[in-house]
Amino acid sequence: MAGNSIGQIFRVTTCGESHGPALSGIIDGMPPNFPLTEKDLQYDLNRRRPGSSSYTTTRSELDIVKILSGVFKGKTTGTSIGLMIQNTDQRSQDYENLKYLYRPGHADYTYEKKYGLRDYRGGGRASARETAMRVAAGAIAKKYLLNQHNIKIRGFLAQIGNIHCTLQDWKQVNKNPFFCPNTEQLSILDKLITNLKKTGDSIGAKITIVAENIPIGLGEPVFDRLDASLAHAIMSINAVKGIEIGDGFSVVTQHGSEHRDQITSNGFKSNHAGGILGGISNGQPIIMNIAIKPTSSISIPGKTITNTNENVEIIVTGRHDPCIGIRVIPIAEAMTSIILMDHLLRYRAQCGTQHHI
Amino acid sequence: MAGNSIGQIFRVTTCGESHGPALSGIIDGMPPNFPLTEKDLQYDLNRRRPGSSSYTTTRSELDIVKILSGVFKGKTTGTSIGLMIQNTDQRSQDYENLKYLYRPGHADYTYEKKYGLRDYRGGGRASARETAMRVAAGAIAKKYLLNQHNIKIRGFLAQIGNIHCTLQDWKQVNKNPFFCPNTEQLSILDKLITNLKKTGDSIGAKITIVAENIPIGLGEPVFDRLDASLAHAIMSINAVKGIEIGDGFSVVTQHGSEHRDQITSNGFKSNHAGGILGGISNGQPIIMNIAIKPTSSISIPGKTITNTNENVEIIVTGRHDPCIGIRVIPIAEAMTSIILMDHLLRYRAQCGTQHHI
Amino acid sequence: MAGNSIGQIFRVTTCGESHGPALSGIIDGMPPNFPLTEKDLQYDLNRRRPGSSSYTTTRSELDIVKILSGVFKGKTTGTSIGLMIQNTDQRSQDYENLKYLYRPGHADYTYEKKYGLRDYRGGGRASARETAMRVAAGAIAKKYLLNQHNIKIRGFLAQIGNIHCTLQDWKQVNKNPFFCPNTEQLSILDKLITNLKKTGDSIGAKITIVAENIPIGLGEPVFDRLDASLAHAIMSINAVKGIEIGDGFSVVTQHGSEHRDQITSNGFKSNHAGGILGGISNGQPIIMNIAIKPTSSISIPGKTITNTNENVEIIVTGRHDPCIGIRVIPIAEAMTSIILMDHLLRYRAQCGTQHHI
Amino acid sequence: MAGNSIGQIFRVTTCGESHGPALSGIIDGMPPNFPLTEKDLQYDLNRRRPGSSSYTTTRSELDIVKILSGVFKGKTTGTSIGLMIQNTDQRSQDYENLKYLYRPGHADYTYEKKYGLRDYRGGGRASARETAMRVAAGAIAKKYLLNQHNIKIRGFLAQIGNIHCTLQDWKQVNKNPFFCPNTEQLSILDKLITNLKKTGDSIGAKITIVAENIPIGLGEPVFDRLDASLAHAIMSINAVKGIEIGDGFSVVTQHGSEHRDQITSNGFKSNHAGGILGGISNGQPIIMNIAIKPTSSISIPGKTITNTNENVEIIVTGRHDPCIGIRVIPIAEAMTSIILMDHLLRYRAQCGTQHHI
Repeated sequence: MAGNSIGQIFRVTTCGESHGPALSGIIDGMPPNFPLTEKDLQYDLNRRRPGSSSYTTTRSELDIVKILSGVFKGKTTGTSIGLMIQNTDQRSQDYENLKYLYRPGHADYTYEKKYGLRDYRGGGRASARETAMRVAAGAIAKKYLLNQHNIKIRGFLAQIGNIHCTLQDWKQVNKNPFFCPNTEQLSILDKLITNLKKTGDSIGAKITIVAENIPIGLGEPVFDRLDASLAHAIMSINAVKGIEIGDGFSVVTQHGSEHRDQITSNGFKSNHAGGILGGISNGQPIIMNIAIKPTSSISIPGKTITNTNENVEIIVTGRHDPCIGIRVIPIAEAMTSIILMDHLLRYRAQCGTQHHI
Repeated sequence: MAGNSIGQIFRVTTCGESHGPALSGIIDGMPPNFPLTEKDLQYDLNRRRPGSSSYTTTRSELDIVKILSGVFKGKTTGTSIGLMIQNTDQRSQDYENLKYLYRPGHADYTYEKKYGLRDYRGGGRASARETAMRVAAGAIAKKYLLNQHNIKIRGFLAQIGNIHCTLQDWKQVNKNPFFCPNTEQLSILDKLITNLKKTGDSIGAKITIVAENIPIGLGEPVFDRLDASLAHAIMSINAVKGIEIGDGFSVVTQHGSEHRDQITSNGFKSNHAGGILGGISNGQPIIMNIAIKPTSSISIPGKTITNTNENVEIIVTGRHDPCIGIRVIPIAEAMTSIILMDHLLRYRAQCGTQHHI
Repeated sequence: MAGNSIGQIFRVTTCGESHGPALSGIIDGMPPNFPLTEKDLQYDLNRRRPGSSSYTTTRSELDIVKILSGVFKGKTTGTSIGLMIQNTDQRSQDYENLKYLYRPGHADYTYEKKYGLRDYRGGGRASARETAMRVAAGAIAKKYLLNQHNIKIRGFLAQIGNIHCTLQDWKQVNKNPFFCPNTEQLSILDKLITNLKKTGDSIGAKITIVAENIPIGLGEPVFDRLDASLAHAIMSINAVKGIEIGDGFSVVTQHGSEHRDQITSNGFKSNHAGGILGGISNGQPIIMNIAIKPTSSISIPGKTITNTNENVEIIVTGRHDPCIGIRVIPIAEAMTSIILMDHLLRYRAQCGTQHHI
Repeated sequence: MAGNSIGQIFRVTTCGESHGPALSGIIDGMPPNFPLTEKDLQYDLNRRRPGSSSYTTTRSELDIVKILSGVFKGKTTGTSIGLMIQNTDQRSQDYENLKYLYRPGHADYTYEKKYGLRDYRGGGRASARETAMRVAAGAIAKKYLLNQHNIKIRGFLAQIGNIHCTLQDWKQVNKNPFFCPNTEQLSILDKLITNLKKTGDSIGAKITIVAENIPIGLGEPVFDRLDASLAHAIMSINAVKGIEIGDGFSVVTQHGSEHRDQITSNGFKSNHAGGILGGISNGQPIIMNIAIKPTSSISIPGKTITNTNENVEIIVTGRHDPCIGIRVIPIAEAMTSIILMDHLLRYRAQCGTQHHI
């Protein structure tokens, strides 16, 4: 049983390989009568797309999304929404030499062992290229959540290597190519990435996602708690190796008297929980930290094997990001949007007659 | 749309409140002709059950599980398996005083806001008591994985407060009430817990789960990657606030040249990935770290509100664990077993004619 | 991937064998704050239960249902509802002689071939006994639909052999053991069944289900149309061999000018469609006819084989219904209720903010 | 919760309106390493497509399908398969006059009431045009079932109005535009359809689907029995109003001694059951009859209302089939193929290690 769908009620199904003719997606369950155009999806696609700055891969995809169905005269009709993004800048010849090799840190080895064959061009389905469709689908959810409920879902770069980027100003985030929330570290980040490009190495990153104005009541005990669904969605993004809700791993050394968020008639006194209690949103901001591993495609030689189990040395050329973590921000926002949208509709299904969230 | 099921093919559905007559579960999709008795489930239930040592809550449930269906003459028949555990040691009167209060750090507030009412006795469905049924269901998966594939799924206490418990000897883990993998820290842990019981406070913990002898190929791109499914299942356990796969948050400061696990004809040279590449198991041990928050039920006074929004002070008495993290170990093992079992069957569904895992 | 669940949002999962200790069920997704007691479920259980008249099997089960969870102080809490019905009048020894035989017309052969073994006592899971849990679950949906939306779901015996029972008076239906909607045929039916009991044979039947006061808009194109979901649910009942929506097979000889239900400002001029257009309810009564095969367990000798493929003659004794079709009526009502309830909640999920059905 | 997906493991998700730019589909769960080209899908698409004879609508779509993903060098890769069929011969202006009207017998009324708006061009999503994607997806399943298991899935026209078409020769079926299984009735059918085109009316039909060489064991009790899944899939096709498995409604007058298929060491003595016992395939041919209503779009004037509830007279011009039933045959074959494929993979998931079907 394959796994190319996410969400239960707001359900996103995708297909498409890095070097195939197109990425495609179907979004089922979108509420009708909501204004939607291709333009609404393009903003976040542009934030994610490769080639948008000198700090990311030089593969240059325009990532123009086309709506094939489900929208009539600028409004959603309630039927399934079809999306398509054509691939344009494929350089498949870059990958011919990798046909019989498994790039270390990549899915080459596991795909071939699992399925018995693999589309070796640019990582095929395992390429981060598939996340373009996540961003397009997520943009629909994001727009609905903002317009109907004023829910804001935003992310920023929190750490890259040993450089910590503290949140100073949300407005800065989309003004620099690092999604860095302050201006002080920009030159340090520039130096770091430039240096990595020279040495041909890569680096990991930590990003933070914040979702605000969440209605109380989202999350479905006991297995589809809101935090569980979010962890699922976030961990499904390429290169993610860890996720924290609220204080995350810091809770290991906390006492109960410190961690529990006390309540007063004016609201919670703190937000160690990160906006979720017992798997259900409590109205406070949802805060998540996400760990992203360093790009595996680097030009520093490494050891690997061929598909006939011979030892070889490998240098991965092609066009790659020195820090893939930077580009995960719009993707993680999109996945968060999809999950919150899905849970909003799940809430309506069972409890909708109570409060009409 | 509620969320009391987990797994797609090996599917576990549960119900039951802390102070209701019984917990119940239905396991659908179990392969037929596999030997199974109630005894097989009891071992892990005993490891989880409350009152098993002086370091955990004094609520004393026998947690005797009864198989209602799906097993005939000691073998699974392929039909849905019914399980039931009766609640016996309920002291609901302990909770009458909490009827109109929301305990900080608990789901009282969110359940009441979401559903408009709540079973306030012992936390109702939000109580960790529901995890007994997870452990029972997980034990079925665990036995199958071990018997048919020699897959071993084990956990240990990795950290509690500032005390680190390094893995010295797996054999020690089940010989002490802390699931501590070495004998040196036992007296320190004893002192810590004893002290917490005195002060009425609680502490967080980190646990590690290791799954060995995993076949290559489990995990379903792009959304139901094995790590995504595991993150979902683990994060659905009460009190979990973070999860790492392999190196987890350490990747933030790693370079690609360090992180990527190089491959030789004798296998991988390292396991930074934690056994999963591109969302698919690579045959190496799966390693996860899990952060568990300190128990919220403590006898140190705290601020909260009533359901009419009046400020009050609360002291949570009743019977509670100073460190709930300790008891999460068999639960996390169970959830890991359920997910691996589900993915094994998912693999068979699509790719089963290739290798017959 | 097994199939012991039905419904997507109002989701019913069951287990239990004919001669096991109990039948059990979990209902997930029930809206909270709705009054519910065990008594609410008992009325339909009594209508279905064996031994309730001399015209049905003499197996005498009390079918007392117990609510294990999901209800607190007489109201649903929004958490999963656990139900249990204990089996009491098992006479498993009746079946020892069938251990190595496949009763013709029964699932003995297919269960054993599929799973490699079978619980041969009373048909195991394939027994119509499992439908008791469907009726219990359906009663929850039925009550909700009636109380909240005035939806009425009722069935009657339409035909048995060559005897046609035309609908004269709904009130008569539950006053006679045949669910016959007029009093004239009662003596004819009595004679028919009495005669069948003498000859040891059985007979087929046709039943009609009518659902009234359905809101416009239930049904999910293109695959989960309301009629498709109903056909699924009804065909899943033991012994059902055919289903018609509205005019059903009569449409084969109809012209479009006759069949299409014309519309006026006062509503539809006819109901050939049976209340569903394009897979969506149109506000008219939903009408379904269902064909039920004759009971396969008869005392007239027949040919079959043993599990070692030897030819033998078989006479099925035990306690059986001469016309199982009669008892399908409350079961079909229950399945219809589950599907309508599920689609009501599915409607709310996607379109709920429009009309608040 | 919308319903644009069918199948659990072999899962087909579709989108697309009659007059939108394209129909699109994603097939998830296809086993890897299976030879597949666009040509494989075209044969059945051509059998279904409009304008292929003078007896069907004159809308002329080429229905050229394009594979966007999931196939590499002529073989399936195990990743999700994207399909697209562009709409080319839309004459949307035909429908401008229907903007404010609800065509009787159509989904215009129910779509607008459900969603609050509708794409009125050619019926939008409710158009039978969407079935092109079902046929494309079904062709993948059909090819796999035939190649790997020699399963044959075929249909023929059984009745149209009062003309019965008995099965004489399967080879004739695809040689005439009626899918009629004998040559004698061809001139009668020609006369009937020609006459209907003159009068501007339409007629219903009955078709029969036969699936042969089915492995024993497909079908998932108790709710996803094979017959239940088939009934779901078949009833989801536009215009279907009834379905029978095996003897269908004839069982109403049958005795158990006649209906039960007796078994001998050489196999079953009859096939009243239609190949399914207890919801599980028994190895005999699966036989289904399907009732299809007459086309609702006819040029005979009829009564309807506008969206402001005014009475009007309507004549539906545009390009329509006098008997839509004829064209349902390849669609019903496709839906049967999808369900059998899905159940084959479901079987493998749970029972695959037993027999390796």
